Amino acid sequence: MKVFVFFVAIAVAAWQCQGDDHGVNFQVFPLRMKSGLGGHYIPEISCESWRLGVETHNIIEFSGVPKDCIGYIGNYLVGDQYRSDSKTVCREAYLYVKTLNISNKDAWVFDIDETALCNLPYYADQGFGAEPYNSTAFDEWVFRGVAPPLPESLKLYKKLVSLGIKIVFITGRPLSQLDVTASNLKKAGYLKWDKLITKDPSYHGKTAVIYKSNERRKLEEQGYNIIGNIGDQWSDILGTNVGGRTFKLPDPMYYVS
Amino acid sequence: MKVFVFFVAIAVAAWQCQGDDHGVNFQVFPLRMKSGLGGHYIPEISCESWRLGVETHNIIEFSGVPKDCIGYIGNYLVGDQYRSDSKTVCREAYLYVKTLNISNKDAWVFDIDETALCNLPYYADQGFGAEPYNSTAFDEWVFRGVAPPLPESLKLYKKLVSLGIKIVFITGRPLSQLDVTASNLKKAGYLKWDKLITKDPSYHGKTAVIYKSNERRKLEEQGYNIIGNIGDQWSDILGTNVGGRTFKLPDPMYYVS
Repeated sequence: MKVFVFFVAIAVAAWQCQGDDHGVNFQVFPLRMKSGLGGHYIPEISCESWRLGVETHNIIEFSGVPKDCIGYIGNYLVGDQYRSDSKTVCREAYLYVKTLNISNKDAWVFDIDETALCNLPYYADQGFGAEPYNSTAFDEWVFRGVAPPLPESLKLYKKLVSLGIKIVFITGRPLSQLDVTASNLKKAGYLKWDKLITKDPSYHGKTAVIYKSNERRKLEEQGYNIIGNIGDQWSDILGTNVGGRTFKLPDPMYYVS
Repeated sequence: MKVFVFFVAIAVAAWQCQGDDHGVNFQVFPLRMKSGLGGHYIPEISCESWRLGVETHNIIEFSGVPKDCIGYIGNYLVGDQYRSDSKTVCREAYLYVKTLNISNKDAWVFDIDETALCNLPYYADQGFGAEPYNSTAFDEWVFRGVAPPLPESLKLYKKLVSLGIKIVFITGRPLSQLDVTASNLKKAGYLKWDKLITKDPSYHGKTAVIYKSNERRKLEEQGYNIIGNIGDQWSDILGTNVGGRTFKLPDPMYYVS
């Protein structure tokens, strides 16, 4: 394979770095979808590049999935790649944990929606992020308390628990959803935790970064040592008191600042 | 398309969130390469997920491209997607800049290798990151001074210059490579800049995060207002004084801490 790559490279690397003024190669750039439905053309942006841009925090504060990418994102979320991408993140988290000497003060912070629990059965009916956020409909879904786990997150959770690591859930869900969230977590297989922190009304109008940073600071003041922190939003893992290492799970559906 | 996605979703979203103990679906997870050579199986990890893990800073301090992913990464780098992914990042950077009122103190920080300049003609001969870093061979390549520009980065550079934004290059290259780097930049189309900062020997043994943070702090002490900062390594954009917004260009070949 090395040899093959070498020859490919000699042939192509030269023009790969060149601009549009250097021949035909970049006339194919970058507007053909390589995934999703039909491989049709999209002006301005490739859906795969859009998703990478979201996951790398280059594309921020987006209001929803671009209309032209609905099919691509839907197929991603119901296909193998979303699971594979999640598995890779959780695997790295576990490889990191195995390098540590765990103490009884060590804690791991989990976000809930699209991190511990999977709302795909709800979002599947919302165009996988294409529809504007509907708080009424989402609350109805939450109060059903039937969200399944994200399986790779649940596997990580079980490994962390077995190592004696304290589990803390910090969610943007309100206090009014605390009980149903706790029962949903148990039903999904998250059987125990140290704390389940919901968003207090005092944070109304504050960003998730501010809310979650402040709650993590309080945890550390209480003596917890946050060794890790995992979420699907950058706002779960940016800010202060982020923990020894942070892990970003994929979520191309929505953005929470 | 919405309707299609809806039906796909109903059929699949239910099991998408379920674990390995729920039937056959996850027996295909996640080990088939969807890209790269031959779509053969790889234990433990999909190369596409590995690349996403690198770009999202979930996978850190890796010593090279996994052997099983050499073909996949090589094809990515010489194919459309690398260009498309770079274009999307630079496009977001420009969309951000257009929201600002530019003053004559505003500066944009560029990294050089795999950001302003493209070393693919060199790395193509090194298995695209599969071979261990060879400083002698890389220095020989650098001193040739013939690295082409990354075309999307050059387009962004030209737009920033046209807006009167000061350009500062901060590179991990040493002072001994300052002259050849300056001439290479000009040859590649980067015709002017305010500062070109190379890594001083006093930073020997220090990480790129420390070196680049300290140089950015000095820039701000000199009165520059860093409105943006773009690099291919997370160490280009993490740390302090990172700028108004940071942008991460793709680079699955190597990791600089």
